[in-house]
Parts: sequence; C-alpha cells; structure tokens
Amino acid sequence: MSEGPGAPAPELLARARLLVSEELSASLVRELERITGRAAEPLEGGGTAGGPLLCGEAAGGPLLCVGAALPDALRASAADATASDKLLWFHSVNAGTDALLAAGPWPAGALLTRTVGRMGERIAQYVLAWVLAECQSVPEFAAQHARAEWARRPSELIAGQTALVYGSGRIGAAVAGLLRGCGVRTVGVARAARSGPPPVGFDRVIGADEDAEELAGARWVIAALPLTGATEGFFGAGRFAALRGATFVNVGRGATVDTGALETALRGGGVRRAVLDVLPEEPAAPEDPVWRLPRTVITSHSAGITADADVAGDFAACWEAVREGRRPGLAVDVGRGY
Amino acid sequence: MSEGPGAPAPELLARARLLVSEELSASLVRELERITGRAAEPLEGGGTAGGPLLCGEAAGGPLLCVGAALPDALRASAADATASDKLLWFHSVNAGTDALLAAGPWPAGALLTRTVGRMGERIAQYVLAWVLAECQSVPEFAAQHARAEWARRPSELIAGQTALVYGSGRIGAAVAGLLRGCGVRTVGVARAARSGPPPVGFDRVIGADEDAEELAGARWVIAALPLTGATEGFFGAGRFAALRGATFVNVGRGATVDTGALETALRGGGVRRAVLDVLPEEPAAPEDPVWRLPRTVITSHSAGITADADVAGDFAACWEAVREGRRPGLAVDVGRGY
Repeated sequence: MSEGPGAPAPELLARARLLVSEELSASLVRELERITGRAAEPLEGGGTAGGPLLCGEAAGGPLLCVGAALPDALRASAADATASDKLLWFHSVNAGTDALLAAGPWPAGALLTRTVGRMGERIAQYVLAWVLAECQSVPEFAAQHARAEWARRPSELIAGQTALVYGSGRIGAAVAGLLRGCGVRTVGVARAARSGPPPVGFDRVIGADEDAEELAGARWVIAALPLTGATEGFFGAGRFAALRGATFVNVGRGATVDTGALETALRGGGVRRAVLDVLPEEPAAPEDPVWRLPRTVITSHSAGITADADVAGDFAACWEAVREGRRPGLAVDVGRGY
Repeated sequence: MSEGPGAPAPELLARARLLVSEELSASLVRELERITGRAAEPLEGGGTAGGPLLCGEAAGGPLLCVGAALPDALRASAADATASDKLLWFHSVNAGTDALLAAGPWPAGALLTRTVGRMGERIAQYVLAWVLAECQSVPEFAAQHARAEWARRPSELIAGQTALVYGSGRIGAAVAGLLRGCGVRTVGVARAARSGPPPVGFDRVIGADEDAEELAGARWVIAALPLTGATEGFFGAGRFAALRGATFVNVGRGATVDTGALETALRGGGVRRAVLDVLPEEPAAPEDPVWRLPRTVITSHSAGITADADVAGDFAACWEAVREGRRPGLAVDVGRGY
C-alpha cells in the first residue's frame, strides 16, 4: 500500500499560492500568512472552473490549500498534469480525513497533512469525563439538584476495572494513559497482534481477531478507530454480543458502529450505557431515532474539536518539514486512509 | 495538644464485648464477628441506663463499639471509673468524626478509630469527575440530548491550569495526584508552610496564610478540610474575594464555608461555579435556599461514602494493631479532632 507522496519540492513550495477556506477565522488566516510569508486567497469557488484562481498567467502556479474540504475543481485538476493551478499540498484543519478522501480520487502527487493538535489530550479528557460522570452519577446529581432533592448515591471506583481501547495510535494511547492513571487496566486493540512491550499507556495490546475474552471482561469499551474499508461496521452484532455490561464510548467514526446491533445490545443489557460522540450520519436531525436509544448520550462530534492554535501549530510544523524537504509527521497515507 | 489514648491493653480487649450499630448490614456484622471472634450485641439502647448491656454481672466488661454515633449512656459511663460497661474503643464507620466529638465530651481513655477505606481514591475520582464534567459540558450535553439537539461545544483542557487543594493529608494528596495526572499544576495548602520537597501529588505546598496570590491564579479550589475550631468559616469573604473565576469544590465539611460569602462571590463572578458535597446543615430540606445558589450543584454528601468492605478492612487493621499493643494508624487525635 502506497504511503502517498513525500514532501513537495521546496522550489515548488516557494512559489505556491496559499488558498484558505472561508470557514477559517481571520486570526488563523493571518497566522497562516505569517508562517508562509504570502497573502491568502479564498479556496472556495476557485479551481480550473474559473474564479479567483485563473485570472491570468500571474495567478497560476502550484497550490497550497488549508481547509476542511477540497473543491471538486482542484480534485479534477490532478487529471491534467499541465494545469497551472496544480494542487501541491492540502492541510486539513481536522484530524479525520476520511470524508476528504471518500469524496473523490485524491489528486496524484498531492501531499495531504492533517491537524491533530492536542486532540489526543482532548479526546482522552472527554473519555475520562464520561467514564467518571457515570461512576459518580454526574447527570443524576444535576437532575436531583434541579428538584432540590437530597439523596446520597454510592460511587463506583474504576481502579481495577478493564478498559478495551480500539485504536492503539496516538489518540488511543492518550485515552489509555489517562484511564491508567486512575488505576484502570488498559488493553489496546490494534489491527494485528504485536510483539514486544505494549506502548506507553497500555497494559497489553492485542489484535482485533483475539478480543472476544477481553470484551466479556471489559467494563469500558472505547472506540477510537478511523473510518476505512476495514473498519466500517467493525462494532457489529458479534462484538456487541460478547459484552457483559460494558459501557461503549465512540470517539472515532460513527460508521465503524452498526447502530442496529448497538441498540439490540443496549436493550439486552450487554451494553450498559453508550456515549456516542460520532454517528454514521451527522448532524442527527431531531427526528432521528438515534436520540431514542436507551441509556445513551450523543455529544455532537465535540470530543476532538480543534482550536485555531492547533491548526496553526500543526501547519507550522508541516511547513517546516516540507521546506527542509522532509515528509511531515502529520502526512496522511492516502492509500490507508489515515 | 493531647493525642488521646494509645492502644487499649490487650488483656482488656480480650474480654471486651462487641457492640454494633443497627445501621450496619448483616454481612458487615458477620465480618466484624469473624475478626473479633465474638458475637455482636446491639449498640443502640445500651449503656448504664439499662437495656441489653446490664443484664447481670456476666454481661459487664469493657466495650468495643462499631458505629456512626455514640449513645449518650456510653459517653456518661466515662465519668464513673468503676462502671462495668466502660467504653474501651469506638470504631467509626465514617472518616469524619467531628459530629461524634462535638456531641459531648469524649469518654476519658477511650480509643477512637475511623474508617478511611478507599476514601482518598473515591473523593479524588469525585473531584476529577466534576472538574472534567465542567470542562467537557457533561450536564449540558445530557440536557441537549434530552432535547434531541445536535450542537457542537468546545471543551476546555485542564493541562496547565492551577488547582489549589486545601488539606495536604491523605485525601488532599489523592485529589492532587489525579489532577496532576491530567497535567494540572497542584498547590496544596496546609495549616502552616513546610520545608522540604512537597508530598507526592503536589507541585507545591504553602501555608494557609500565604494563599492570596495562588487564589487569584487558581482555576480550581478544592476544599478538603476537616471541621475543627480552626477551620470553621475558613472559606469566608476574604478568600472568596481573592478568586478570579475559579470553580469551588467542597469535599471536606460544610461548616468550613461561609455560605453567604460564597453566594456573594458566585453572584459577582469571582466564583465561576460551585460543587458542594457538604453543607453546614445536612440534609438540606427542599425549601433550603442553598439549592438556589447560582451555578451550583449539591451532591448530598456522597463523595466519600464508605462501603462495607472499607469498614471491615480498616477495622481489621486497627484490631491487629490493638492486639499487638500498638496505637492504630487510623486512631483519631480527639484533641485535634481528626
């Protein structure tokens, strides 16, 4: 599987135009202009179909784009190797690039980088917040308070419990690390079993095909998987049937979960509660039946929201690498999808 | 200040009767009987005033009691040094013994021990749960979900923030340790400044008279103080006026806080939010105005609920120490009050 292109040639980057999405804040755009030493132009409405990108020869040249989505026109330009506005590099303001890659073929030779920022830390704090909120009855106490009701509630200690964390990369490891700090036994699930000591944060890492026993003993199942062909519907009837009262938290991608199978497991008790930051179809409309899943809370894809400082910081690191002719650490393998 | 009595003489303990409060569960009583090797008798209704304790010479002897409150009759018996049912040792099922000590003079020579159990861990997880719940909008997402409303919310990262933890003992250190694991800078506040490196969990420990600057910079103020003559109203107008938007969490004792001063600070914005596990008067009646403090949640004195296993485990450790003639580590200094 190809890793995709390395770094664009520094001499091309030197004369690349900077195109930024209109959803970026003015202060972030100023920061990107400062880093690259050039003025930004609007990304949307541009491309070979006309618009600001093709207003004469002077406006041509390789393109460096920053945004969430790639306009079709720029995607199409890849087919024409002589196009003057060839996409050299696209920096995504998000960590997940599945939607970008699924929307059409990725322009040949174009580098794709992404923003991770403090996302691992953010998602880890999100997961720990919801784990502890359940053990400490945070929503229940908020409701009791609203009724001016004094009623003691016992708490559940998480030390000694097992959390299964699907995804043993940066984000999975950050999640596991925080849970482990509270005494939780953390088991990472990777695509395949590995040899050697587990990465920091994990007590153990297993392969996805050997998780049955751990599922049965888990108190927490944390899904932090990217969406690829191999992970669509990954959490289906089989895995949910193996659970014995675990709470399921999804901070990865909605389509990695078979929602019908999750509902069956919630109704049967195999899944104690569900915390879903992501859904197969977002945003969920008010009439979407997903809101009526029992013992479930949906948090509107907020666990890993990137801040402007995250985008600027990660872009600057990529810029530095590319200027030196290196492939950035935040480059996406467009074949693998993350 | 007296530390109170050491361990009761092993020969007295050997013939002491075991009296247990009626609020103890049957399984806990069986465990106490197993540890002490004798049958339990009811604590309530006993004492020199008659009842099960004085049904003849055979029923006399020194007393070992386990419960939450000391019957007045047993307290009075201390005045009569020849009383046959003299209190030798009282083991409290709670960690806080202020109410026990405030209800009347403590019987001279009687050992008082307490249950701490995994209370440090429990209270630490409670504090972290409410800190993260605020940063991750847990109650707000629960409310949004109930309205089937999809709306993204940014999160607040706690790394780099400062938490001031009042009480640098076991519980304060456990709280600080968990917060520190999430990257929070933890400052302990002890009765007096100390020399030497700070205890584990703390970045720094200061004295209670030098906290003004740290109060101004704190994002979190965690109160974990016992109630003594020196701590009543400790969190008053002066300390609250020094805050610049901190959230105040009280897991110690309600009477360490001047509720009127807290309300003023909440209305003025110096206190961002308050999480009160304890109140000066508990339980709070539905009409108590404390329920209407702005941006406050009250959690019904649940942060440190002791489980049966905590009581049995801590009692067993005390039993072992006393049998060997040692003063138990969980003995309360009845002069100091904790």
